[in-house]
Amino acid sequence: MPPPPPSALIRVIRGQSSAVLTRGDALAALTDEPGQITRWFHFPAMQRANALIGGWMREAGLEVREDAAFNLIGRYPSANPRAKTFVLGSHLDTVRNAGKYDGPLGVLAGLACTERLAAEGVKLPFHLEVVGFSDEEGLRYQTTYLGSRAMAGTLRAADLARVEEKGIEGARRARQDFLGYAELHIEQGPVLEAERLPTAAVTAIAGQSRIRVEFTGRAGHAGTTPMKLRQDALCAAAPVISAAESCGALATVGQLEVKPGASNVIPAEVVLSLDVRHPLDAARLDACARLKAVAESAADRRRVKLRWQVVQQTKSVACDPALTALMREAVGRHQPRALELPSGAGHDAAAFSALCPVAMLFVRCKGGLSHHPDESVKRGDVAVALEVLRDFILALKRRHDPS
Amino acid sequence: MPPPPPSALIRVIRGQSSAVLTRGDALAALTDEPGQITRWFHFPAMQRANALIGGWMREAGLEVREDAAFNLIGRYPSANPRAKTFVLGSHLDTVRNAGKYDGPLGVLAGLACTERLAAEGVKLPFHLEVVGFSDEEGLRYQTTYLGSRAMAGTLRAADLARVEEKGIEGARRARQDFLGYAELHIEQGPVLEAERLPTAAVTAIAGQSRIRVEFTGRAGHAGTTPMKLRQDALCAAAPVISAAESCGALATVGQLEVKPGASNVIPAEVVLSLDVRHPLDAARLDACARLKAVAESAADRRRVKLRWQVVQQTKSVACDPALTALMREAVGRHQPRALELPSGAGHDAAAFSALCPVAMLFVRCKGGLSHHPDESVKRGDVAVALEVLRDFILALKRRHDPS
Repeated sequence: MPPPPPSALIRVIRGQSSAVLTRGDALAALTDEPGQITRWFHFPAMQRANALIGGWMREAGLEVREDAAFNLIGRYPSANPRAKTFVLGSHLDTVRNAGKYDGPLGVLAGLACTERLAAEGVKLPFHLEVVGFSDEEGLRYQTTYLGSRAMAGTLRAADLARVEEKGIEGARRARQDFLGYAELHIEQGPVLEAERLPTAAVTAIAGQSRIRVEFTGRAGHAGTTPMKLRQDALCAAAPVISAAESCGALATVGQLEVKPGASNVIPAEVVLSLDVRHPLDAARLDACARLKAVAESAADRRRVKLRWQVVQQTKSVACDPALTALMREAVGRHQPRALELPSGAGHDAAAFSALCPVAMLFVRCKGGLSHHPDESVKRGDVAVALEVLRDFILALKRRHDPS
Repeated sequence: MPPPPPSALIRVIRGQSSAVLTRGDALAALTDEPGQITRWFHFPAMQRANALIGGWMREAGLEVREDAAFNLIGRYPSANPRAKTFVLGSHLDTVRNAGKYDGPLGVLAGLACTERLAAEGVKLPFHLEVVGFSDEEGLRYQTTYLGSRAMAGTLRAADLARVEEKGIEGARRARQDFLGYAELHIEQGPVLEAERLPTAAVTAIAGQSRIRVEFTGRAGHAGTTPMKLRQDALCAAAPVISAAESCGALATVGQLEVKPGASNVIPAEVVLSLDVRHPLDAARLDACARLKAVAESAADRRRVKLRWQVVQQTKSVACDPALTALMREAVGRHQPRALELPSGAGHDAAAFSALCPVAMLFVRCKGGLSHHPDESVKRGDVAVALEVLRDFILALKRRHDPS
C-alpha cells in the first residue's frame, strides 16, 4: 500500500512528526544524481524541491514566493501589516550523496510548526516566514551560504562573479524588517546521543582556523643514523598531534603525510592539517598560538624547518542571548533537562546573524552522522523538537503581544 | 685524455687509493640498466664484473675461480698448503640505481691490499682470499646474502626453491678451513662524518625488529565531536612516535598512513611502520616491549583498537672480539683516534659469521648517503682504510706466524 499523500497526513496535528519524516522521504527522491541525494543550487532537483514544498506551503494557507536568489519563502502574515518578521529557516541544497535531514529537517519543521499555528488560527504579533535557502553547502560554486547571504546582503563581488545566475543580490532584505531567526538542525555530532537527550539550544556557531603545518627535516638510513644526528620531521610533528588533543579547543589533525614514506628511511618531510574550532574566538586563537609554540619548539629541538600556514579563519557567531534563553526554556519544558551546545559546523544562522538576532535548536541524530546517506533521526525526537519550536514561537508571541 | 688503464696504475703502490677509485668507476660502467648502476645476481653485468675483477686478480698473481654460487674468489696462497684461509670480502651486486661503493669498495680494497702484499712478496701463514659475493642486496630473488650464505652453507630450502640457478649450494665450504673474515664497507651513516674520522672498527651488526602497528578508532566530524567522545587513531599513535625517539634503541617510524585523511574528519585508522635496531638483542627486545606498552596504554585511553604485528626479526651478529681488537688497534695507528661503531645495516659479514670469526672496517661516506647514485667517498679516506686493512693483515700474520 503506498503511503497516504503528505497533505492528508499533515492535517492530523497529532501525526506531525511522522508527516515531517514522510515529507523528508518525498524530498529525498528529488535528486540530480539518481540513486543518491544530491541537490545543488538552482539545478533541476532544487527547482522541484521548491515546487514540492511551495505546494505544501500553499495548502497550509501561506503566501509563497521564490526570491531572486531562489530561496523559497512561505509567509504566515500577522494581522498587523507593519509588524516585523520572524524567520524559521534552513537550507534545501545538499552535499553530494547526502542524507535526508541536514537542512531539509529545519525547513519541514518550520513548515509543520507554522501549519499547526495556522490550523489552530493562532494570531501572531509578527509575520512568520518559513524559508528554504537555496544554497548553504555551496557545492555548485564553492561558496557557502549563497542563499542566506543574498538575503542578508553580505555577498561579495567575488561571489557574484562566480555565479552564473545574475541578479541574485536582488534577494537582499532590510534589517529593520526582521525580528529574529530560528533554525532547527540535526546536531551532526554525538553529544545529544551521549547525553541521552533529544534536543539542545545552541549557544554559538564556533569559529574555525584551518592551518597547514609543514616540517622539513632530513632523510637518513633508519639503521645507521644515530638518534642524536637525526632531523626527523615526524618526531617533530608528534608533539603537535598530542598537544592538539588537550589545547582547550576542538582541535583535529585529520591529514598527515610522511615523505619519503619508507619503513627504513627517516622522515624528511611531514605535512599535516590542523583544524581548530571554539565558540570563543579568543580561546581559538589562544589554542592556535599554543600549538604553534609547541611546533616551533619541537622543530627547533630537532633542527627541523617549520612552515605554519593559516589557510582559513572564520570568526565565531554568537546566538542571541535572549532568543537562546527562550529556546533553552522551551527545551527544558519538553525533555528531562535543558542543554546548551555550541555548534562546530557552520549554518545559515551564521549568515543570517548579519540581519537580525538568531537562535538554533539541535536535534539528536544517529551516531552523530551527517553528510552521509545513513543520516538518521528518531520520530520521537522530531516530535519533541516540533513541540519545542512551537513553544518557542508561542513564548515569543507572549513577549511581543501588546498586553 | 682518457685515464690510464687500471692495471698500469695499480702497479704503483703509492697510488693504490686512486687506483681503487678508478677501478670503482670502471666497475660502475657495468650495468644492466644503462644510465644507472644496477647489477643483479647472475645477470650479464655481474658476469662482466666478475670477468673484469677476475682479470685484475690474475694480473696480481692470484688463483682465480668462480664458485657454484657465482662468487668470485681470488686466492693468494700460503706456502703452507694445510694453512687455514682468511677472507677479505664484500659483494659486487647492487640495488637498483645504486652508488659505486656499497659492496665493490670492500672487494677492490681487499684486492688492493692483497696485490700489495703479493708485490712486496710478503709470505703469509694463512691463505688470503679476496671474495666478491654474487648477491647481498637480494633484489633479483628477494633473498639477501645469497652468495655468502651459499658459501656458509646456510641457504634454506625456500631460497633454493626460489632461485633459477640450480646447484648453488655446491658453493658450501667447510668451517675448519677458515681462520676469519674481514669486510671493508662504507659506513652508510653519518657518524664518521660527525666525528671527523676516516674509519672505524665495527663491533656488531645490529639486530632488527620490523613491526606493523595499526590503530583503529572511529571517524567523526572535527567540528562537532567533543574531545572526550573521540576515538582518534592518530592521537593514539602520536605517543608511540615520541617514545620511539627515546626508547634506547635506534627506532624509526618511517611510514604512517591516516584514514580517511580529510582535514575535517577525525582519523579512524592509522597504520605505521616501526623499525627498531640495536647491537644487543636484549636491548632491542626491551625497547620493543616498552614501545608496545606505550601503544597499548595510548590506545586504551582513547578506546582505540591496537594491532601490533611483528613482521620480521633479525638477531644481531657480534663481530669477533679478538679480530675487532686487532682492527681497532690498526685504526688507531692511522688516524687521530680509534673508534668503534655498531652497524645498523646488514652485511655479508653477518652471513659469513656462521662459518668463522668476522671483523669489519667502516669507511666514511659523504653525508652518510648510500643506495643512491650520489654515494661518495674521499680518496684520502680510502688511502687510510687501505693502510688499516694492510696493518690488520700484518698484525694477523704476526699473531699466526710460528715464532
